[in-house]
Amino acid sequence: MLKNYRMKIALAQLNYIIGDFDYNTAKIIETIQSAKKQGADLVVFAELSVCGYSPRDFLEFSEFIDLCEVSAQKIAAACSGIACIIGLPTKNPKVKGKDLYNSAYFIEDTKVKAIVNKALLPNYDVFDEYRYFEPAVNFSCVEFMGHRIALTICEDMWNINDNPMYVISPMDELVIENPDLMINIAASPFSYNHDEERVQILGDNCRKYRLPLFYVNQVGAQTEIIFDGGSLVFDQDGSLLDELPYFSESLKIYSFEYGKIIGHKPIVHDTQNNIQQIHDALILGIKDYFAKSGFSKAILGLSGGIDSALVCALAAEALGPENVMAVLMPSEYSSDHSIQDALDLVNNLGCKHEIIPIKEAAAAFGNMMNPVFKDLPFNVAEENIQARSRAVILMAMSNKFGYILLNTSNKSECAVGYGTLYGDMAGAIAVLGDVYKTQVYKLSHYINREKEIIPENSIVKPPSAELRPGQKDSDSLPEYDILDGVLYEYIEHKKSSAELIAMGFDVALVKRILRMVNIAEFKRNQAPPILRVSPKAFGIGRRMPIVGKYLG
Amino acid sequence: MLKNYRMKIALAQLNYIIGDFDYNTAKIIETIQSAKKQGADLVVFAELSVCGYSPRDFLEFSEFIDLCEVSAQKIAAACSGIACIIGLPTKNPKVKGKDLYNSAYFIEDTKVKAIVNKALLPNYDVFDEYRYFEPAVNFSCVEFMGHRIALTICEDMWNINDNPMYVISPMDELVIENPDLMINIAASPFSYNHDEERVQILGDNCRKYRLPLFYVNQVGAQTEIIFDGGSLVFDQDGSLLDELPYFSESLKIYSFEYGKIIGHKPIVHDTQNNIQQIHDALILGIKDYFAKSGFSKAILGLSGGIDSALVCALAAEALGPENVMAVLMPSEYSSDHSIQDALDLVNNLGCKHEIIPIKEAAAAFGNMMNPVFKDLPFNVAEENIQARSRAVILMAMSNKFGYILLNTSNKSECAVGYGTLYGDMAGAIAVLGDVYKTQVYKLSHYINREKEIIPENSIVKPPSAELRPGQKDSDSLPEYDILDGVLYEYIEHKKSSAELIAMGFDVALVKRILRMVNIAEFKRNQAPPILRVSPKAFGIGRRMPIVGKYLG
Repeated sequence: MLKNYRMKIALAQLNYIIGDFDYNTAKIIETIQSAKKQGADLVVFAELSVCGYSPRDFLEFSEFIDLCEVSAQKIAAACSGIACIIGLPTKNPKVKGKDLYNSAYFIEDTKVKAIVNKALLPNYDVFDEYRYFEPAVNFSCVEFMGHRIALTICEDMWNINDNPMYVISPMDELVIENPDLMINIAASPFSYNHDEERVQILGDNCRKYRLPLFYVNQVGAQTEIIFDGGSLVFDQDGSLLDELPYFSESLKIYSFEYGKIIGHKPIVHDTQNNIQQIHDALILGIKDYFAKSGFSKAILGLSGGIDSALVCALAAEALGPENVMAVLMPSEYSSDHSIQDALDLVNNLGCKHEIIPIKEAAAAFGNMMNPVFKDLPFNVAEENIQARSRAVILMAMSNKFGYILLNTSNKSECAVGYGTLYGDMAGAIAVLGDVYKTQVYKLSHYINREKEIIPENSIVKPPSAELRPGQKDSDSLPEYDILDGVLYEYIEHKKSSAELIAMGFDVALVKRILRMVNIAEFKRNQAPPILRVSPKAFGIGRRMPIVGKYLG
Repeated sequence: MLKNYRMKIALAQLNYIIGDFDYNTAKIIETIQSAKKQGADLVVFAELSVCGYSPRDFLEFSEFIDLCEVSAQKIAAACSGIACIIGLPTKNPKVKGKDLYNSAYFIEDTKVKAIVNKALLPNYDVFDEYRYFEPAVNFSCVEFMGHRIALTICEDMWNINDNPMYVISPMDELVIENPDLMINIAASPFSYNHDEERVQILGDNCRKYRLPLFYVNQVGAQTEIIFDGGSLVFDQDGSLLDELPYFSESLKIYSFEYGKIIGHKPIVHDTQNNIQQIHDALILGIKDYFAKSGFSKAILGLSGGIDSALVCALAAEALGPENVMAVLMPSEYSSDHSIQDALDLVNNLGCKHEIIPIKEAAAAFGNMMNPVFKDLPFNVAEENIQARSRAVILMAMSNKFGYILLNTSNKSECAVGYGTLYGDMAGAIAVLGDVYKTQVYKLSHYINREKEIIPENSIVKPPSAELRPGQKDSDSLPEYDILDGVLYEYIEHKKSSAELIAMGFDVALVKRILRMVNIAEFKRNQAPPILRVSPKAFGIGRRMPIVGKYLG
């Protein structure tokens, strides 16, 4: 038995760019070289690290799969005297089944020594792995330096505690071969309660199989999906020994000998409050959207209200205030304090601003529509002309100067359709689209935790779209604490109207809210991608018929 | 043996509304009563007929599944002295596996006599069945009136000719029980080449298993997905005996005795030309979008160009010209002939129109932006102000009068991003978003097949957005016949740039087009739903990373 050979395992928690093979390959090779200098024997990268997660329908281009293999061979060539685990899609050599596997290569001393395929393919919420991959049905451990490694990919460790979704459990098969440790490579997206769940599920695996575990997650935002890192190390009792930082890249080396991880004592998972986590996730989401798109400068409309103030503060933190252009676009219905609140914010942040009143555009459209509208009363048509005129201004600035427009709609508004399509619903990325209004307040207080950045007045005044005299959100919507309560149960927990009413919510209120949510589906369908911070965000993780009659 | 009992089978090809249980249930029960009066013993409805296809994430609401069962029981209660087959999602009673099956109920004399579950779950293109359903693994035939029926659901007959995607073939299992006939209930969406494929694949099943087949498809549009009907009847040699109409509802009764379908001779599948099929599909797509959304009146911007002219003609045919409002919004760059061409079309169709010049709005925005734009040269910013001002006008009309905006962008433009987000890319439904520009010409000639409806001048003049003096599409884009050739191979056939170049396309041209397609992903992500008429439409069937670097 050679199990007393000391093995140094490096966990590489990196931020990849989907489909940028040059970038990802260079980053992986540099990390291998750095780990080698630090004495590592094995460097572990995340699921689909070669191409980024998720490549979606890029996977249907056979050249894309070929380029993954080319990258893997370059990485292998750089593994002289060291081993690594990388993730990539590979071709299914079988005659039957889907074209691809979601695979891990175990590379040792420039050679691909073992290929492990994923068996449990998530196909819920934002995941579409059955669209591309054939599930693995054969399992075997990898031998390395006298240790037997049970290597699995992400979801393959999630059929613990009799998760009813899956019929098999890969670790049940692998454990038959008496492995010495488990390694799991993952691409596990952030939501505000997912870190606790990961620590629990992965620790349960250790306790069930009596094995230590090294778990490597991706970090970084891929459009709407944010990977939070937080890679984990457990001993065979399921005690957490270490966790890599959240929301940043990291490389850390561990020693493994006599079936144990050396030099670490159990720690307690650093449970941060949800609001701080959401804050950090949104910052990374904004930062990566811009960096990976090749843009640096953001623009947004600043109304004096809390939503746009919060987005402005987040953008200034993510991109630097010098890269944020806030545009104040008052109308005849804007209150004086709104302009002052917006200016106070701009001053507090140090970002750029312009003031472009929309009166002239609103008047022009008024004149132009007059022969058609005649003396019909002012209604939502005129309200929306204002919101859309603002979008025209912001997009003109974007087109002229290369700014990218940030959308400032919150999840409560998105849910009930309280927003103007092609108006305030415009933008390249929706920063708060998965943040309920009640959470917007909490995030704003968090931004102000050390000093007042978002003017107190923006936080305390009654929310208003200011599209007609004296307008308040509460004219059209229930109070946000009540609204958000119903929305949370309906969207996150998929409660029907009958169940909501049984929970004590008012019958008429429930019917009204569910109806608003459902008739707004056509609007959400054209909304920008939304930075996902909850277990159920609008966008690719929630797929509803646009024309459909069921209200829940 | 009772096989000589004559059985009368009614095929019910109906148009359902997703989630409208009252509507669907009433329609199914009325059809059963009608078929019973005509002497039918068994009425066959389509896949998921109880709830419509596809209910998407409605399926994640447990109440939705309960309501499907309630509907099925109502339908069963109406089946006194008659049998029927309906499709619905059902709960998976197993401890393991996904929550639901995609099922068929065989109802006989008010009782559910057999439940058949679908085994092959499409999860490609627009399909997401693995998101919801557990695949069936057990198969058995249904006995009825002395006949043994191999009842399957849609895709379960598509693993013929060794389709590599699937590992099992349900008919291989069912044929062991020596059935007398096959019945397949389907929800098979239209694309312009799919009818031939269906006739081929289903006929191959008959030839392989030496059994006759009754095949019932849905008809009707569900937002972007259009079901074309065309239900089929085959004898045991795989000869086509009958086909129900395309793009309309139908109920037809067949007699089956001594293992044969009586009174029908082989026919040749009525292969219509693709352009006529696309035309019929778009008409149904428009009609059902409005009818199922509860709207009747459409609005669109009419430029004098061919795309908006074609959409106007299609809308007038689908909704009646009295329900179509065409808005002419000339700018200083509009040519005189454009206005005249648009007016000629309006006159030819008899639809309503307004003329609202955008000069005043463009001037207002010019003044408003002047302090910021200063003396920077006219560029895409000013071009887009015009396109977006038009969207403001159209949406104001929509908000004031209840019109629904039709988008007029074609597939070639969508592909390369030749359109203004929140401008001419606005609309509730994109009529031509899956129709290449070269097909737009063919469709326009088809519209004019009997007399000139679309003015010849709109067809023959060089395409132009008319957003700056003398602008032509060919200033920014390759000629459409070349562009469409590359796009077709790239989008429909997923060819990489290397493969396209190997096919003989110019290197620089290919790189340029693929780059345009990929950087437009963020625009398409916010485009309206697109009526799908090809095997690969933009929208839910083509899922690309927005921030991603692979160009193909």
